[in-house]
Amino acid sequence: MTTRTAAQRRELAAIEYNAFIRECPTHKLLARISDKWVSLVLVALAVGPQRYSELMRTMPGISQKMLTQTVRSLERDGLVARTAHASVPVRVDYRLTPLGETLLPVMRQIKQWAERHIDEVEEARDYFDGVTSDSA
Amino acid sequence: MTTRTAAQRRELAAIEYNAFIRECPTHKLLARISDKWVSLVLVALAVGPQRYSELMRTMPGISQKMLTQTVRSLERDGLVARTAHASVPVRVDYRLTPLGETLLPVMRQIKQWAERHIDEVEEARDYFDGVTSDSA
Repeated sequence: MTTRTAAQRRELAAIEYNAFIRECPTHKLLARISDKWVSLVLVALAVGPQRYSELMRTMPGISQKMLTQTVRSLERDGLVARTAHASVPVRVDYRLTPLGETLLPVMRQIKQWAERHIDEVEEARDYFDGVTSDSA
Repeated sequence: MTTRTAAQRRELAAIEYNAFIRECPTHKLLARISDKWVSLVLVALAVGPQRYSELMRTMPGISQKMLTQTVRSLERDGLVARTAHASVPVRVDYRLTPLGETLLPVMRQIKQWAERHIDEVEEARDYFDGVTSDSA
């Protein structure tokens, strides 16, 4: 008799799932979380629950439409929870769920990687553009 | 007299750079690396240099156009190096650069996260879709 815990089932499933394969549902999920606004919203929520307007301030330049779409899709995927407080006017805030917390370290690292390695990437681009224009 | 190492300069720069800000070059770089094919190509190259055709086989479903665009952009950003060998026919292979190696662990984690948590995400979606259709 084998009774598997949820964690064991996930480990087993991870062997069968393969995000390299376009038809695998994990491929689509990888595409979904490979999104700059997903990373940024999750990192913005690391400090604790935030109102919509606070998220807007943390990410100047995000449009209302994009922020609304992003939080809704994060809510649907179970990464963010939305709470509407019975106040006048209604106060709505967003926070990470336990599942969202598991993705946070990865999202934080990708943001930090971009911030730490931009100089090297820009040097590489200058070099590449120089070489390819020389050969043109 | 302060002489800073490259690593120290990058740490300092990371304080000033802020990927939350749309105008910051790191925001654009975050957007660039937040791409499913970027993750998958880097993870595919973790095993060692790969020919173009080997990459195609690892990622069934990727179009030639998308793979060509992805490897070229990774090459331009200094994450992947392309080597053409003097053989007939010419053999071209791709490998991670040292800079690409620094991004690999993050890309591997994001792929693994998708593979490990797909069940929880799907449960959350079913619940969300049930709740939102009930209230309609």
